[in-house]
Amino acid sequence: MTYCVGVLLETGIVLLSDTRTNAGFDNIASYKKMFVFEEPGERVIALMTAGSLSVTQTLVARLRDAVDDPEHSTVKSVLAAPTMLEAANIVGDALSEVTASIAEKLGRMNQTASASLILAGQRKGGGLRMFLIYPEGNYIEATAETPFLQIGEHKYGKPILDRVVTMDMGIADAKKALLLSMDSTLRSNLSVGMPLDLAVISKDEYRVGQTRRYESGDPAFAAMSEAWSRVLREGFSRIEA
Amino acid sequence: MTYCVGVLLETGIVLLSDTRTNAGFDNIASYKKMFVFEEPGERVIALMTAGSLSVTQTLVARLRDAVDDPEHSTVKSVLAAPTMLEAANIVGDALSEVTASIAEKLGRMNQTASASLILAGQRKGGGLRMFLIYPEGNYIEATAETPFLQIGEHKYGKPILDRVVTMDMGIADAKKALLLSMDSTLRSNLSVGMPLDLAVISKDEYRVGQTRRYESGDPAFAAMSEAWSRVLREGFSRIEA
Repeated sequence: MTYCVGVLLETGIVLLSDTRTNAGFDNIASYKKMFVFEEPGERVIALMTAGSLSVTQTLVARLRDAVDDPEHSTVKSVLAAPTMLEAANIVGDALSEVTASIAEKLGRMNQTASASLILAGQRKGGGLRMFLIYPEGNYIEATAETPFLQIGEHKYGKPILDRVVTMDMGIADAKKALLLSMDSTLRSNLSVGMPLDLAVISKDEYRVGQTRRYESGDPAFAAMSEAWSRVLREGFSRIEA
Repeated sequence: MTYCVGVLLETGIVLLSDTRTNAGFDNIASYKKMFVFEEPGERVIALMTAGSLSVTQTLVARLRDAVDDPEHSTVKSVLAAPTMLEAANIVGDALSEVTASIAEKLGRMNQTASASLILAGQRKGGGLRMFLIYPEGNYIEATAETPFLQIGEHKYGKPILDRVVTMDMGIADAKKALLLSMDSTLRSNLSVGMPLDLAVISKDEYRVGQTRRYESGDPAFAAMSEAWSRVLREGFSRIEA
C-alpha cells in the first residue's frame, strides 16, 4: 500500500508521500510516488500516486511523453492545459484509459488493478488547486472546509489532521501536521514505509520551491517522531478519564 | 459500521463498544453490541460484535437460548464450557453456522453478511483470556505482545493504542486509552457513534465488576475528549518539525 497526503493552504500547497510498494510480503521495494511537471515561473503541477504500480508507472510515462513530445502523444500535455481543472481532466482521462487497457489483460486472470491520485499545482492567472482523482478518472477538489486530501492507507493518519489542519495555517505547521500524520501511519501499518518525499509549492511562485527526502533514520524526522510520542505519553498520563 | 476494542491486562480486561448501526445513510439506529454471560463468582464471558446485525442478533439469541435451556439447544452453552478456549470454539462454530444459513438466503440476491467478534472472560481455575473471532469462525488470542484486539473501524484508533497500551498498565489507564481511541474514531468516522458501552472484568472476580454507558454529551467523556484535543494542539504547536 501507500500513504500520500496533501494540504491546500492560503499560502501554498504541501505534499507528502511514502515510497513503499509491495507485491506480496516477500516482494517489497521502494518507488517514488511523487512526480513534478513544471515550467518554473509559469506553471507547476505535482502528482502523487497510490495503487497498482503497473497502472501508475504507465500513467506517469504517458503524461511525461505528452509533455516532452505533445505532437506524437495521444494524451494532451498537462503543461498545455489552460487551467488546473483541465489538467485534472487530462490526468483523469489518461488514468481511466490506462486502467481500462490493463484491466482487459488482468480480467482474463480474474484480477484487477487500479490507482488513485492527488494532483496539485498552480498556473499563472489561476489560484492554487488540489484534486483527488479516483480510479475511475473522476475527481473532487480540496476546499476551505476540506483542505487536506489523502490516498492509500488514509485512516491511521486522519485523526491528527482532523484536529489541527486548517487552510489558514502556515506552511511550516502544515509540513509538521503531514509528517506527524505519516508517522502515525508508519507506526501502525507495515505496508507504508520510509523514505518519504516532501514538496512545497508556495503561492504565486509557479514552481516546487522546496523538496526534501527523508531517508530511514533521518535525524530530524526521528526527533520529531520521538517528541510527538513524548507529547502523547505525557498528555495521556496527565488527563483524567 | 462499528468500533469495538478490548485490552487484556495483568489485572483485568477492559472492553469498549459503540452502538451505531446503519443500513444505508438514511437508516441509522442504536443497538447494544456488548453482551455478558455470567455466573457471578464462578465464570464470566463478555462478547462484543461487529458486522451485519442480522448475523449478530441471531448469534446472540442462539447463545442466550443455549445458556437458558441447554437441553433444547443445538448450540452448547458457553457457561458450561470447561475453558475460555472451548467457549471461543462454541461461539466460533455458532457464528460460522449462523453466517452460512444467512449467506444461503442472501446469495440468491448476490449479497453477503458477516460479523466478527471479541470474546473475553475468565472462569474459576483459568486465567483471563480474550479472543478475536473472525467471520469464518476461527480466532486469535490476545497476548502480552499484542494485548489489545479491535473489530470494525479499527484504523483511526490504532495509533494511540500502539503508543500507550501495555499489558502491565492499570485498569484506569486502560479505560482512558480505549476511550481516547474511541474518541479519535468518533471524530473521524461518521459510521461509529455514541452512546458507548464500557465493561471491566477484574482478575479472579469472575463477574463484570463495572459497566458504564456514555450517552451522547456525557460530561466526563466530553471533558476527556476536550482535554485530549488540548494536549494534541498544544503539543503540536510546541514540537519542532
